[in-house]
Amino acid sequence: MTVKVSGYGVLSPTAPVAPLQFSRRTPRADDVVIDILYCGVCHSDLHQARNDWGGSQYPLVPGHEITGVVSAVGPEVTRFKPGDNVGVGCMVDACRTCDPCRQGLEQYCQQGPVLTYNGMDRHDHMPTYGGYSRSITCSENFVLRIPRGLPLDGAAPLLCAGITTWSPLRHWRVNHNSKVAVVGLGGLGHMALKLAHALGAEVTLFTRSPGKEADALRLGAHHVVLSTDAAQMAAVGGQFDVIIDTVPCEHDINPYLPTLTLDGTLVFVGLLGDMTPPVSTVPMILGRRAVAGSCIGGIAETQEMLDFCAEHGVVSDIEVIDIATINDAWQRMQKSDVKYRFVIDMKTLI
Amino acid sequence: MTVKVSGYGVLSPTAPVAPLQFSRRTPRADDVVIDILYCGVCHSDLHQARNDWGGSQYPLVPGHEITGVVSAVGPEVTRFKPGDNVGVGCMVDACRTCDPCRQGLEQYCQQGPVLTYNGMDRHDHMPTYGGYSRSITCSENFVLRIPRGLPLDGAAPLLCAGITTWSPLRHWRVNHNSKVAVVGLGGLGHMALKLAHALGAEVTLFTRSPGKEADALRLGAHHVVLSTDAAQMAAVGGQFDVIIDTVPCEHDINPYLPTLTLDGTLVFVGLLGDMTPPVSTVPMILGRRAVAGSCIGGIAETQEMLDFCAEHGVVSDIEVIDIATINDAWQRMQKSDVKYRFVIDMKTLI
Repeated sequence: MTVKVSGYGVLSPTAPVAPLQFSRRTPRADDVVIDILYCGVCHSDLHQARNDWGGSQYPLVPGHEITGVVSAVGPEVTRFKPGDNVGVGCMVDACRTCDPCRQGLEQYCQQGPVLTYNGMDRHDHMPTYGGYSRSITCSENFVLRIPRGLPLDGAAPLLCAGITTWSPLRHWRVNHNSKVAVVGLGGLGHMALKLAHALGAEVTLFTRSPGKEADALRLGAHHVVLSTDAAQMAAVGGQFDVIIDTVPCEHDINPYLPTLTLDGTLVFVGLLGDMTPPVSTVPMILGRRAVAGSCIGGIAETQEMLDFCAEHGVVSDIEVIDIATINDAWQRMQKSDVKYRFVIDMKTLI
Repeated sequence: MTVKVSGYGVLSPTAPVAPLQFSRRTPRADDVVIDILYCGVCHSDLHQARNDWGGSQYPLVPGHEITGVVSAVGPEVTRFKPGDNVGVGCMVDACRTCDPCRQGLEQYCQQGPVLTYNGMDRHDHMPTYGGYSRSITCSENFVLRIPRGLPLDGAAPLLCAGITTWSPLRHWRVNHNSKVAVVGLGGLGHMALKLAHALGAEVTLFTRSPGKEADALRLGAHHVVLSTDAAQMAAVGGQFDVIIDTVPCEHDINPYLPTLTLDGTLVFVGLLGDMTPPVSTVPMILGRRAVAGSCIGGIAETQEMLDFCAEHGVVSDIEVIDIATINDAWQRMQKSDVKYRFVIDMKTLI
């Protein structure tokens, strides 16, 4: 029992993104059916389409920064009704019974969460397809409420870029007493600046390229430090409680560790691979500093973030595009030529 | 105003350890003068003597696992009196005013603690000399009380090997609900097993060499896992809240990270240099796992550990040696041919 849905996807690792039709399940009792209005464009979309991480299944319909309006609900759905503004992020299900799931940390589900695309439904074993499409069908437990006051276009990237930086900021208890640094000013980095600022922290951007200062300050940074300048780096030695490192490729973190305070933590949120070049343990040992990773965020904390963003007027800086231009957008994203997130206007999907 | 003290030390990076005389200050008002009865032999002694870390000053008198009896006290000393059993560890002073010092974390003093040897006194700028000697003079604020019931020979290694493993066990809140793994079974590793066991944790030793099982179990391990055996490693996936990594040279930690639980931490306590080969961030990101460092421990927590060890009957496994055999002992230590710590009987210093 399936329904045909139109969208954009890829048929192979080398194919362009192109219109296609695919099947979604007919709604189950706990399902919410969502008319997709906007979908953010995440670097993961490109990686998965190109099978950079292995395991990609085709056809592959990307997109996990989804906002829209509820069009129908199953009979057991209690929290949503047609017309509600809602979102879906990187996950559409998890085992719901393991320790992490019961703690609301479904992203760390011991059986692995069901990803929004390139995943497999736990019940009917159908592939999951993402938000570059007309509609999506998802258990209400993995649907987020988009509060009134949050525009659906600017809110879309909160579902991945937002929560991925929010979760470590909250886990490492960032507040108005904290000093936070952010490495990298892309989709994740610009959200980290906004969210850390809104949480009251003193925020610094580390950048390797001069010329980002004005933008960084506008986005919420109080200071910009050129990480290639030894004097600037020495001047911030021992300062930061938390560094959110958003760089999605291998890079040298050795310059950053001495800028952490005693017991400070550098958190990787981008899928960067190995710590290359090798990291010296000396500043870790001499300052009880830590290097950690963090993966998106749980459903409850995603809702918490959306509510916080509505209250503080935080959305992503976006460039809204026509879905017919998606291949160009991916090319520009690869060159970091986007400030700071592409969002597809799904009305352009004809 | 100095006094001559006899001891053993080195005159250059290539010289053997040999008898020598050197000067210590006459006691200041807050000083405790200690007749040294035992001094543990730490790998750092050898590294510093050989200038492996740079910055060694000669003559260099090693030794920072010192136990003995108070022979005299300055007029302002309130906590010690002649005849008391006491100890001195890796530090003899710090700035005492910075944030870490005020938190009792003198090892992370922002001006750097004054090390027991190869350091420089903050007031008279004289070099500091360690415990391979007849006596030591130290401010009472950096003198530890050795509780009745702790033998002075087996207690000596608690001042470095003991506190270096105790501090991270306590900081990462190890208790009877914890699962702890220890990497490496040397001076630090054997103390980590004993202390984690005494704290009530379920304790596992990771080892690369078969044949250590009986000893590990005797020292406090409940399980021994051969880290070169992929099946054994897979069987402990996601298990450990804390891994205390005591290996003092570069080694691959990639096999250990997936054995940490969600939010688990691997803590380096040995001076190993770089994380080589490079560490994959994937298990860190997918399980919010951390890699951290920890450096010896503060004075207050050292006293806490000594009191705990007296209460729980924990001491180091030692081999007591004559100081005239110290060069042989260093050679054996380099080959890990010691179970598990050499302790010099200072009565043999004639």
